[in-house]
Amino acid sequence: DEASTRGNLKIVSSDGSFEGSVGGRIHFDAYAFDNDLTDSTSTSEFRRARITLKGKLYNWGYVFENDFAGQSGTTGTGFRDMNIYTKVGPGKLTIGQFKPYRSMEEITSSNDILMMERPYASATGIYNGRQFQQGVGYLISDDQYTLGVAGFNTKSAGDNRNEGLGGSARATFAPIMQDNMVVHMGASYSVENANSMTTAFEAEADYVGRRGPSETIALTTDGESVNTVGLEAAISAGPVFAQAEYAIADFGNATGDDEEVQTYYIQGAYTLTGQMKPYKSSKGVFTTAKGNNIVQLTARYDYIENKDVTDLEAETTSVGVNYYLNPAMRFMLNYVMGENTLTGDESNQVALRAQMAF
Amino acid sequence: DEASTRGNLKIVSSDGSFEGSVGGRIHFDAYAFDNDLTDSTSTSEFRRARITLKGKLYNWGYVFENDFAGQSGTTGTGFRDMNIYTKVGPGKLTIGQFKPYRSMEEITSSNDILMMERPYASATGIYNGRQFQQGVGYLISDDQYTLGVAGFNTKSAGDNRNEGLGGSARATFAPIMQDNMVVHMGASYSVENANSMTTAFEAEADYVGRRGPSETIALTTDGESVNTVGLEAAISAGPVFAQAEYAIADFGNATGDDEEVQTYYIQGAYTLTGQMKPYKSSKGVFTTAKGNNIVQLTARYDYIENKDVTDLEAETTSVGVNYYLNPAMRFMLNYVMGENTLTGDESNQVALRAQMAF
Amino acid sequence: DEASTRGNLKIVSSDGSFEGSVGGRIHFDAYAFDNDLTDSTSTSEFRRARITLKGKLYNWGYVFENDFAGQSGTTGTGFRDMNIYTKVGPGKLTIGQFKPYRSMEEITSSNDILMMERPYASATGIYNGRQFQQGVGYLISDDQYTLGVAGFNTKSAGDNRNEGLGGSARATFAPIMQDNMVVHMGASYSVENANSMTTAFEAEADYVGRRGPSETIALTTDGESVNTVGLEAAISAGPVFAQAEYAIADFGNATGDDEEVQTYYIQGAYTLTGQMKPYKSSKGVFTTAKGNNIVQLTARYDYIENKDVTDLEAETTSVGVNYYLNPAMRFMLNYVMGENTLTGDESNQVALRAQMAF
Repeated sequence: DEASTRGNLKIVSSDGSFEGSVGGRIHFDAYAFDNDLTDSTSTSEFRRARITLKGKLYNWGYVFENDFAGQSGTTGTGFRDMNIYTKVGPGKLTIGQFKPYRSMEEITSSNDILMMERPYASATGIYNGRQFQQGVGYLISDDQYTLGVAGFNTKSAGDNRNEGLGGSARATFAPIMQDNMVVHMGASYSVENANSMTTAFEAEADYVGRRGPSETIALTTDGESVNTVGLEAAISAGPVFAQAEYAIADFGNATGDDEEVQTYYIQGAYTLTGQMKPYKSSKGVFTTAKGNNIVQLTARYDYIENKDVTDLEAETTSVGVNYYLNPAMRFMLNYVMGENTLTGDESNQVALRAQMAF
Repeated sequence: DEASTRGNLKIVSSDGSFEGSVGGRIHFDAYAFDNDLTDSTSTSEFRRARITLKGKLYNWGYVFENDFAGQSGTTGTGFRDMNIYTKVGPGKLTIGQFKPYRSMEEITSSNDILMMERPYASATGIYNGRQFQQGVGYLISDDQYTLGVAGFNTKSAGDNRNEGLGGSARATFAPIMQDNMVVHMGASYSVENANSMTTAFEAEADYVGRRGPSETIALTTDGESVNTVGLEAAISAGPVFAQAEYAIADFGNATGDDEEVQTYYIQGAYTLTGQMKPYKSSKGVFTTAKGNNIVQLTARYDYIENKDVTDLEAETTSVGVNYYLNPAMRFMLNYVMGENTLTGDESNQVALRAQMAF
Repeated sequence: DEASTRGNLKIVSSDGSFEGSVGGRIHFDAYAFDNDLTDSTSTSEFRRARITLKGKLYNWGYVFENDFAGQSGTTGTGFRDMNIYTKVGPGKLTIGQFKPYRSMEEITSSNDILMMERPYASATGIYNGRQFQQGVGYLISDDQYTLGVAGFNTKSAGDNRNEGLGGSARATFAPIMQDNMVVHMGASYSVENANSMTTAFEAEADYVGRRGPSETIALTTDGESVNTVGLEAAISAGPVFAQAEYAIADFGNATGDDEEVQTYYIQGAYTLTGQMKPYKSSKGVFTTAKGNNIVQLTARYDYIENKDVTDLEAETTSVGVNYYLNPAMRFMLNYVMGENTLTGDESNQVALRAQMAF
């Protein structure tokens, strides 16, 4: 059988029907805060330290990924993609833990995200902590469209056992797909029905970046559900890239009125060295141009609010530079300006990342 | 050197004297309870998520296995086989953490066990939580017999440090070993001497399957010991398979009388597609026929009681179907009917597993 | 690409520019105490159980090492070397978590250390728990000298986030480097400036070996700093080896006077089978002769004291035997005699290790 390496280890059987690989990623960060009303601690931190085993056997595949930097004392907290999959009909059937199909930037790999942290329209905000769920997914994709549906237990490996059930669906379409321009549009719907044992669903705003202050935007009470609609649009045209998402969620409240959470962001990049951000048709997201010494300027405006509670809103404006040293490494610099309307806090953060994926 | 894969990664040196491999297993379960007097939470769960490193060097071998799905905040709780071994005289010497030689179904790999959970005559019941121990083992095996002895600290990697000492011995014999029929008989003896720092030895009955209610059948008090005798018998004849174990244990009590725990089970399978369950002579257990689309009906009756406490007994009747999709994957469906005589609880469980070993 | 194994897995690309490997180590110990005034529990224990991923890509390298035997419920406690590195100018630039350049025996790999535990002049004592730090390092080395400097956050991956900053520098020189004799000299300086969130810096004496009693020799109070000077000397001449270190540290005290901690040790070995301990020029430490059936007698006298607190001192005298069965395995036997002057405790320990590195 054939062995190969690009820093990782990979073996493919002579007939190509079996495959095994060991890879991983290291994201090493430093954060410095310019505190206003809140008091955040500047520090260094491994943002991600993952070992990823992948393989193929008898027309099935598996992904076994543990994030050692995200693993606390609770069993399973380090699990990321942990699933088996196969082709069924026109699509890909996944069983185990995976990201439900919703939120474009959430589905974008952490190796490829534009800014150091994902926007509020992801599991960093409106789907707080609900990045990976356990269940069954089905994804059909073609050059220009994807359609993914997922049914899941409202539990990731690190959560309490519970009987909550959820579902999500995401459809994307790329009406323009040319060598020098790709336009992407998408929509998703997510429903999460808690059970009394389910940890409350939350929308949260870490409005000054990682390890900064956070504000709870909404929280379901005992056994209530959350319904979320999301819209996506993006364009990659030569060195220019722009992406926006809008999401609105209804957070159930057992005793009072439901609360509506709204979030949107627009982020963009200009690649000084000219490369175009490529499109990954199989997932309906944008990925990263591979090369040496690519320099990219980035910016994002991100907003979230609880429409039913006065002043319960936060916004974050970020600017940054990405430096792609080689196809496996990236250095990121972000300047994050946060604002919490409720408290009036306007703290800022400078964040730095050294990233290697192998 | 020669690289190969069947979904895993393996490299063997040209002269065969060195070897290294990375493999693993994913067991993904869903449990639904029909609760009677107890209140169990239905859920999905990774039953096992293991990375297994194995190798050979200078006539020694090692196994380094961590179960990420069994790893809590306590150091070492994820360790499974974690040992080095070599051939000494006629047998295999093992140093480190391994399963002491006792209980046939315990020694059977979780990839091969007949039902989703092991019976009471294993570390699931009478040897509760004492699946792996740290020490030294020696195992002699031939085509038709095995003899294993182990001496150990009464500590697995995740337990408190303690000075307790234990020993076990297991002898098996296969009087009939033909192409279409194997008959197995075995006996084991285990002694576990606690020390004041040793966590109390327990016999426990999870009588409605995994994550259902549990009843403590016996518990040693400070520094007391447990002595257990086990008997085994099994037959594999064409598509028919049956296996039974009996174990009786004396749980020491510092202030009162010792308590005697008795357990037995009989389990069987009928493979609709005709394959015979093969015998693994080196360990004295039955394993799994390798193939595609093998369908097997299974059943077990399992009983445990404390003979010295009135009504402290539990029984579990399980029926199931195993579907072996390919040599690396299995889907399991179990229906588990439990009864706790002490409380009168008669809850049931439907359990489902998707299993891949690579 | 080319696959190879010596018990591990390694793949190197045909042109040598890419490389990936999976290896590890298992150190399995047993401790028996002869308790005097303190009451330590004899036990078996995995001292180390590490998986180590290493690789090279685009002129960079990475090390991803997790010690499963050192990993508690706190995120990152298992991280050891977790960094990326490259050649910059004449030296090696390291980013991430690594051992700051200070203390010769600390920098010596645990696979190569002379006795089972490191002396007080390491992170086992005067740099207690501060073995790995997060930051940036730069190391220049030639055949006969090394010069390493490190700047770091006073945080290893398992510590609290904090804004403490530290730096260290170590210079070594080997004035004699002949086939049958190497003489090594070195000096290091370390400064650690705590911040209010930094866990207090401590000097500790585990004076009866691992899992025995321990005495706090010094402890900084809120936000104070530690400054340490270290001196090293060693000689390897045929079968004879001797190594000594001296370190003196100033532990800051916010309210009272600073406290001065002094420690030194001398350790030696005589290799009955004649092999000379080789020198590792790239790191400025001694390593292990590779071969079969090497037998080595070892001894160490180790002392630590707080010069500003009467009788706050401890000493440990150890003797031992190392048996190198083959290039990958070692068995160690240590007899450790400890003395705590403050309490008068004079407990002893017998310790045994089975070690495999692959």
